[in-house]
Amino acid sequence: MMEKLYLGADIGGTTVKLAVINGDGDIKKKWEIKTNTENRGASIPQDIHVAFEEALKELHIEKDQIAGIGAGAPGFVDTDTGYIHEAVNIGWKDFDFGEQLKALTGLPVWVDNDANLAALGENWLGAGRGAEHLIAVTLGTGVGGGIITNGQIINGANGTAAEIGHMTVVKEGGAPCNCGKTGCLETEASATGIVRKAKNALTDFEQSILKDSIVSGRLNSKEVFEAVYKGDELAVTVINDVMDTLGLAIANLAIAMNPEKIVIGGGVSKAGDLLLDPLQEAYNKYALNRTREASSFGIAELGNDAGVIGGAYLVKKNQ
Amino acid sequence: MMEKLYLGADIGGTTVKLAVINGDGDIKKKWEIKTNTENRGASIPQDIHVAFEEALKELHIEKDQIAGIGAGAPGFVDTDTGYIHEAVNIGWKDFDFGEQLKALTGLPVWVDNDANLAALGENWLGAGRGAEHLIAVTLGTGVGGGIITNGQIINGANGTAAEIGHMTVVKEGGAPCNCGKTGCLETEASATGIVRKAKNALTDFEQSILKDSIVSGRLNSKEVFEAVYKGDELAVTVINDVMDTLGLAIANLAIAMNPEKIVIGGGVSKAGDLLLDPLQEAYNKYALNRTREASSFGIAELGNDAGVIGGAYLVKKNQ
Repeated sequence: MMEKLYLGADIGGTTVKLAVINGDGDIKKKWEIKTNTENRGASIPQDIHVAFEEALKELHIEKDQIAGIGAGAPGFVDTDTGYIHEAVNIGWKDFDFGEQLKALTGLPVWVDNDANLAALGENWLGAGRGAEHLIAVTLGTGVGGGIITNGQIINGANGTAAEIGHMTVVKEGGAPCNCGKTGCLETEASATGIVRKAKNALTDFEQSILKDSIVSGRLNSKEVFEAVYKGDELAVTVINDVMDTLGLAIANLAIAMNPEKIVIGGGVSKAGDLLLDPLQEAYNKYALNRTREASSFGIAELGNDAGVIGGAYLVKKNQ
Repeated sequence: MMEKLYLGADIGGTTVKLAVINGDGDIKKKWEIKTNTENRGASIPQDIHVAFEEALKELHIEKDQIAGIGAGAPGFVDTDTGYIHEAVNIGWKDFDFGEQLKALTGLPVWVDNDANLAALGENWLGAGRGAEHLIAVTLGTGVGGGIITNGQIINGANGTAAEIGHMTVVKEGGAPCNCGKTGCLETEASATGIVRKAKNALTDFEQSILKDSIVSGRLNSKEVFEAVYKGDELAVTVINDVMDTLGLAIANLAIAMNPEKIVIGGGVSKAGDLLLDPLQEAYNKYALNRTREASSFGIAELGNDAGVIGGAYLVKKNQ
């Protein structure tokens, strides 16, 4: 019998990541194409179709070996139909992406939110391997998330589930968020939030080794973690404060979801134990004993491949 | 063809509620037996078995008409096996309730947490009818919950899911909770929390019509809502404050789950619109626009029958 193969597509604002993956998760080929956002992203389905056709030819793969395409987009997705309510970075609004890609390729197509696909990828082959109940948190410029319960992604009533960056963690007087609210988790625990809080803390810690970077406006969150490693008081105070807030938010979510695995990904997660240690301490303080006993933390393992691997897994799970 | 029937059992600390229900949700018979907590609740499986046997005889129902038993217990349940990790009020610890009831009755048995079953009952025939994604919140002496996503109850990794009364809503200096933490939602938004907050507010509102009840120590949460109706400032302030906190907690959950329905039950929910109006106002303030657009609130409709109806539905869904 021929080996079944799965196509994954992870559509971002600048590139579309593509991969051909087998049932064991081995990547046969992975590559990127430019995201053409001209004309409100109208050519993207065709661009993806052509890219896959060429790759299959190059790899001498017959189309009937392909079980389907799993695609992720950064926006609100109707997962039943692959219809995109809105994906601001791409330019899509009320766009029947799933139907178009299906018509072009003649293959079954499943579409989901990109953060959900990344969570699914980690669930298949990464830090959340095999977990039936998983919370994935992505810490980057913003804070994103993906939640899996009973082995299934939660999309919710209108594809908005797991937008955990917008949980309110500062009830009053919090920083303004892009969503229009204030005090969202994203304003506190993102790379942007860490830098802002470090700046604000300078008056209390004039001796900080971060002073020059702060004053020159070049500080980034990586530097703050490096300063924690060197024992800088400003950095330690800010990171402990941020991780206390993040630990509280994750504990509250975990009390509701009772996950076995909590996966931290995104650029900020490269801080590794400098992030995980204070985060777990805060989590342990705010979680129920039984919630804590059931769960463990891990840093995401699949990096930029999480989305395409999640896409392949979405097909494998649904076929 | 004979009509299929479903048996529901809702095991509480003082009584076990029982019912025989058909596939349309019509209750053929409902009754209660005393919960025998002697000997750590060892006789309860036998008591339930005998009660059902007698009822079937009385109703002239043959056993092969019964599709199974759905039972709820107030504790941590392994839903795969019906094993009870712990149910403090009953006296059970590491108790193979499901296996025993199955062996005694010869019927398929499904067991879940009682709050989850109540959510499932409302999901079948009550305020959450037909919702694929639902959050049920029970406001009584404590605060409980049940969460349904993708049409399924979330139990989580060790049966602790939806313990939303223990989400931390006061980060520092909150009231102590039975769980060992402080500032849990249960310490703020339960009947107990409302009464405590009304007492604490008396110094600011000496003219309150609740003064006598507070001083005599007889105040209950129902009286606080009645005082809101009469425009009492202390009562209005306390209820707005409590509902702001509850609205924030539910909004944070809803941002993660994206429910279509949020069902408020328990004794406190009898306040109806006096509770729902300030709660929705707070929810609208803290939820994302898309989250809010997808969701509506309702007061639980099934009262004390929610558990047995949920039990019957658990069988119907799984058979």
